[in-house]
Amino acid sequence: MYTFKPEPIELVEVGPRDGLQNEPDIVATVDKLALIGDMLGYGARRLEVASFVHPQRVPQMADAEAVIAALPDRADATYIGLVLNKRGVMRALATRENGRRGIDQVGCVIVASDTFGQKNQGQTIAEGIAENRAMLRFAKAEGMRAQVTISAAFGCPFEGAVEPATVLRIAEELAAEGPEEIALADTIGVGTPAQVGSLFERLGKLLDGRIPMRCHFHNTRGTGIANAWAAYQSGVRIFDASLGGLGGCPFAPKATGNIATEDLIYMMEGSGVATGIDLDAAIAANHRFAEVLGRELPSMVARAA
Amino acid sequence: MYTFKPEPIELVEVGPRDGLQNEPDIVATVDKLALIGDMLGYGARRLEVASFVHPQRVPQMADAEAVIAALPDRADATYIGLVLNKRGVMRALATRENGRRGIDQVGCVIVASDTFGQKNQGQTIAEGIAENRAMLRFAKAEGMRAQVTISAAFGCPFEGAVEPATVLRIAEELAAEGPEEIALADTIGVGTPAQVGSLFERLGKLLDGRIPMRCHFHNTRGTGIANAWAAYQSGVRIFDASLGGLGGCPFAPKATGNIATEDLIYMMEGSGVATGIDLDAAIAANHRFAEVLGRELPSMVARAA
Repeated sequence: MYTFKPEPIELVEVGPRDGLQNEPDIVATVDKLALIGDMLGYGARRLEVASFVHPQRVPQMADAEAVIAALPDRADATYIGLVLNKRGVMRALATRENGRRGIDQVGCVIVASDTFGQKNQGQTIAEGIAENRAMLRFAKAEGMRAQVTISAAFGCPFEGAVEPATVLRIAEELAAEGPEEIALADTIGVGTPAQVGSLFERLGKLLDGRIPMRCHFHNTRGTGIANAWAAYQSGVRIFDASLGGLGGCPFAPKATGNIATEDLIYMMEGSGVATGIDLDAAIAANHRFAEVLGRELPSMVARAA
Repeated sequence: MYTFKPEPIELVEVGPRDGLQNEPDIVATVDKLALIGDMLGYGARRLEVASFVHPQRVPQMADAEAVIAALPDRADATYIGLVLNKRGVMRALATRENGRRGIDQVGCVIVASDTFGQKNQGQTIAEGIAENRAMLRFAKAEGMRAQVTISAAFGCPFEGAVEPATVLRIAEELAAEGPEEIALADTIGVGTPAQVGSLFERLGKLLDGRIPMRCHFHNTRGTGIANAWAAYQSGVRIFDASLGGLGGCPFAPKATGNIATEDLIYMMEGSGVATGIDLDAAIAANHRFAEVLGRELPSMVARAA
């Protein structure tokens, strides 16, 4: 038989953060909350709900605290806030003050490219390692769950190829801080299945079951779903995706979105892999949110439905 | 290392036939020939250039003989004509009369579903087997190269699931006639990688290296490129694709196209698999033909370029 172990996967629904951050029109807080409610409704149990970045840099996330304050207080949900520095972790911690539910887990980010890292968050790789290690330590000391994503792990828009050894060295440094998981992200959607399968296999050997792996793909060059399959084949069981493939920018057609939750779920369930997601409910949620944005979303499965 | 053998593949460019047949506006013969010239230019060496069907059923193919008469007489190219019956084979043979180059190879088609087969070409599976065996015998007897595609091999729009055993039984019957290759086609784009990988692995064992396998995917539910990767992993080395992902119908958004040549080539070359295709030239050809049709084509790679 075609080599394949049908083990369940976990979806991390990143639509509310990575999906929305490039939308040129500000989505109302109430619409974000309705979207998150729909996502819980179709079975998403871990959701990237906001990022703690400066509102001048990402205006779409200016209402992060307002969104978080109104999240349903569900015991079975994990809400992730993206953080780029210690100040972000402090904002995440502040959402829990005065007995409020707030953020459950922070998602740290390091870029596997000096040039891209400096442009994106003012850090070389070495500075990013130091900052992320400090953030992970600080979060844990304060009782905040924390994980980390290595961004541009399969290619950099400025430097081109990214050496697997560079990514693995970063992962090894971060692993020393015991994050809940380490993700590799194909931020610009250049990865291919052989590359993805190989790098996750090497990461899996490095982490040796001590720390779970997560993957994050964009479909910029049509390889996103194939890369997700290759990651699955190399032992990844946690997958980022965004409803509808949100994450593109309607004014920049080349900035395409995350892989679509519906397409990932269709591919996985159709391959015998349990996801815990109700695909029909996700498609219905896609169509509701498409009305909010006033345009069709990229998911192929939702279009075929 | 992630299990992976970098062996070269062959592209079968199906844009001129499967890509165009659903276009509502008739593409001028001269534009079809320019498209085929572009495809030869980017390195395609086997091309499905026309189908021999009744012009009332597929008006876009009414100029089949005119297109074929004007094809470049290149020794390194193989021109395929699609045939659904013996009359089609006779039309293919007629293109070679009077010393003309004409069609090099006929592509026969059988549908792996009684209901779909009856609607598409008025044949049950049993009737299709008999007809295709007769066509293969007739073509060979007349000195015409011939191969065959098993359509709806991964699902039927009317009957739903298609049993792998049904597909394999059809393949076994057809193999007895010694076609140059046997293809499995996901005509409606419902297949998933585990299903594709498993069925091609079983077909490979059945054919045991005697007859090469070819695959044909549509990206209707976003799985097309992932399915191509799974097929590669199961030993398939011949891939149908159409420039730009042609094959959708602009008036029926749910009828999405073949996997895009550019996206397949990007994925394969980026995985270390040689294709013989010049990707930049294919993207340029996409942009030229998009001008002919007056709309952007679905290929993600061409959009990202």
